[in-house]
Amino acid sequence: MDGANDYDMELRRRAQAVIPGGMWGHQHVQRLPEGYPQYFTRGKGCRTWDANGRGYIDYMCAWGPMILGYQDPDVEAAAARQREMGDGLNGPTPALVDLAELMVETIPHADWALFSKNGTDATTACVTIARAGTGRRKILVARGAYHGAIPWCTPSVAGVTEEDRAHLIQYDYNDIASLEAAVDQAGQDLAGIIVSAFKHDVGKEHILPTRAFAARARELATQADAALIVDDVRAGFRLHIGGSWELVGVRADLSAWSKAIANGHALAAVTGSDRFRKAATEIYTTGSFWTAGVSMAAAIATITKLRDTNGVAHMEAMGLRLREGLQKQADSLGLKLRQSGPVQMPVFLFEGDDDRRIGNRFCLEALARGVFFHPVHTMFLSTAHTPAIIDETLEISAEALRATANAL
Amino acid sequence: MDGANDYDMELRRRAQAVIPGGMWGHQHVQRLPEGYPQYFTRGKGCRTWDANGRGYIDYMCAWGPMILGYQDPDVEAAAARQREMGDGLNGPTPALVDLAELMVETIPHADWALFSKNGTDATTACVTIARAGTGRRKILVARGAYHGAIPWCTPSVAGVTEEDRAHLIQYDYNDIASLEAAVDQAGQDLAGIIVSAFKHDVGKEHILPTRAFAARARELATQADAALIVDDVRAGFRLHIGGSWELVGVRADLSAWSKAIANGHALAAVTGSDRFRKAATEIYTTGSFWTAGVSMAAAIATITKLRDTNGVAHMEAMGLRLREGLQKQADSLGLKLRQSGPVQMPVFLFEGDDDRRIGNRFCLEALARGVFFHPVHTMFLSTAHTPAIIDETLEISAEALRATANAL
Repeated sequence: MDGANDYDMELRRRAQAVIPGGMWGHQHVQRLPEGYPQYFTRGKGCRTWDANGRGYIDYMCAWGPMILGYQDPDVEAAAARQREMGDGLNGPTPALVDLAELMVETIPHADWALFSKNGTDATTACVTIARAGTGRRKILVARGAYHGAIPWCTPSVAGVTEEDRAHLIQYDYNDIASLEAAVDQAGQDLAGIIVSAFKHDVGKEHILPTRAFAARARELATQADAALIVDDVRAGFRLHIGGSWELVGVRADLSAWSKAIANGHALAAVTGSDRFRKAATEIYTTGSFWTAGVSMAAAIATITKLRDTNGVAHMEAMGLRLREGLQKQADSLGLKLRQSGPVQMPVFLFEGDDDRRIGNRFCLEALARGVFFHPVHTMFLSTAHTPAIIDETLEISAEALRATANAL
Repeated sequence: MDGANDYDMELRRRAQAVIPGGMWGHQHVQRLPEGYPQYFTRGKGCRTWDANGRGYIDYMCAWGPMILGYQDPDVEAAAARQREMGDGLNGPTPALVDLAELMVETIPHADWALFSKNGTDATTACVTIARAGTGRRKILVARGAYHGAIPWCTPSVAGVTEEDRAHLIQYDYNDIASLEAAVDQAGQDLAGIIVSAFKHDVGKEHILPTRAFAARARELATQADAALIVDDVRAGFRLHIGGSWELVGVRADLSAWSKAIANGHALAAVTGSDRFRKAATEIYTTGSFWTAGVSMAAAIATITKLRDTNGVAHMEAMGLRLREGLQKQADSLGLKLRQSGPVQMPVFLFEGDDDRRIGNRFCLEALARGVFFHPVHTMFLSTAHTPAIIDETLEISAEALRATANAL
């Protein structure tokens, strides 16, 4: 769409004047092939609409938060009830205690919880608590992993000083020898090991942790009396209701949560074990909106509904249906589609597609037909994705793949 | 209240099990004299209710955010309209552009705006942008000033490493010689000078910037081609709709905003001048909920209403009415009340009250009679505080001061 009815382009032009570069961060449309919309105006269930009124079956779910679909009626009813009473007040609402209890009850490693607003708030608090609780400084981080967007962890080094990362030591995800080497390097100064729920670096194959790697990470942290920190910001509540590393039989000392925790309401959390309870009282972390009740009421409704309906199993079944259907379609066309990651958090890459020509084309062909895929980032399914929606998606993907194959 | 109907105590007991220390951060009731409630259940206009059902005329305004009063109908209507469409989506909503334009139009120093969720997000982005835009590292910070709660700036040093603060140099607020000395110390490595809107350290007299200090800070930053950063997180929109330092005739290169920007909806912003536009595109800062539309629609409604009704003048008039009334009452009782700060953001301290015996007693006596004051922290008035409410407050404060005087 272009010309007089192109509201998206009009907004982009206006934004150029008042927002540096027209947009910032991960949602900047420059990170996508040309043809994607920048602005959105609506979301409902598993569908979203852009500023030009085009609707899509959505596989980004607002980049993760929408785990029950946009405007889930149960979550929104709970939020509305709390809003009627109060959101931000001079202290927390009772929803704080209810939510902390629910998380401790639902997440096996958790003896306590703290809340904040951003995933970065939670990962940063985990690192700070690990240091406070051990009196040590070194944090082991997987090469290429994303843990947030402030100087100690942000992907761009602009404005970052060397000191911001002075006590980080890198290892390779799923590589036990490299983790052991990093532990050796930390020596007596090891405060914690931070691991993503799985390896979900942008533009790369997504890889689940091996049981051996997870067990060794746990063992190394325990031996050093350091914190094993699971960053479950992106994956939390999609792979396992009790935390993603339940799947590999390993429990963290500290976990960071955000994205899906309140079905789109701004909230983040740290959960921790008793080993780090005292340390969590010693650090000072807070924010003006961190005890606001509405997002907590939304989180209680979200977690409860996911648990009671076994939302994870549904998302897994839908993800599998999509993966198998897509693979059959691609194979039959001779397109070397490599799907990876958990089925409910997939990434679609094509073999030998270093310049993203195939992947971008496929995603644009799907977009033009009303399906929103992302060519390089983790995607997300929600419980609002039904078998009928997956089948509708597959009809479109068949055409999109055919058009891609023809264009090559 | 105690015994069977003490819901607040019940919540505190439950919280002890699932939240480290029962609560975290600035809202922990341990930071207040015994007798204050921890939990709140409702807010409406300038009134709030605690978990035991006791109502108060509120002078904390949820620690600042409630600038038009709890549940302002215009703000909530705008939020509801946006919520009907969409909050967090795959990209920003048009509200992003509308809000950025409104801020650029309203705030004289602003050529652009970026949004986030916490005051700390905004101050941290300012520092990072200053470093990116200058290629230098040193940030000058006033001794004792609060700029957020992550390792580079948080008041507690638990879990903080020396390197987190390696490039901070301290000066004394309003002390030109000390600022000049800090600039000298930074030498060729000066990236920015960060100043609070006014000196509002907890438990201390609040002091407005002198015109001479503000002008010298501007001059020193300009001479070094470094950033003058105004942290307007706490004061923003209460002292001047265009930014607090408009009052002293000085414009920042970068300003951090949060608290009152959306009347309680979680939002923060950085505004900047063209000098730092490019740097703002180079840093990477983002969050899962940073482009959500509801808080932006709320901000547009909040700023527009404040501007169109001259909310600042109203809050000033109400603050003055309260200050003058209180002072008369205290003086007549021989209580050495020292009120400081802008009248709409006051702090009440008593001369020679180092152990806070007088201040705490006065606040508890007011609390028992239905007025919520804070004994050591900046307080906040809103546009929902009417002359009748101030007079009702003064009737109560007269009794509370009398009871305090009698008890001494």
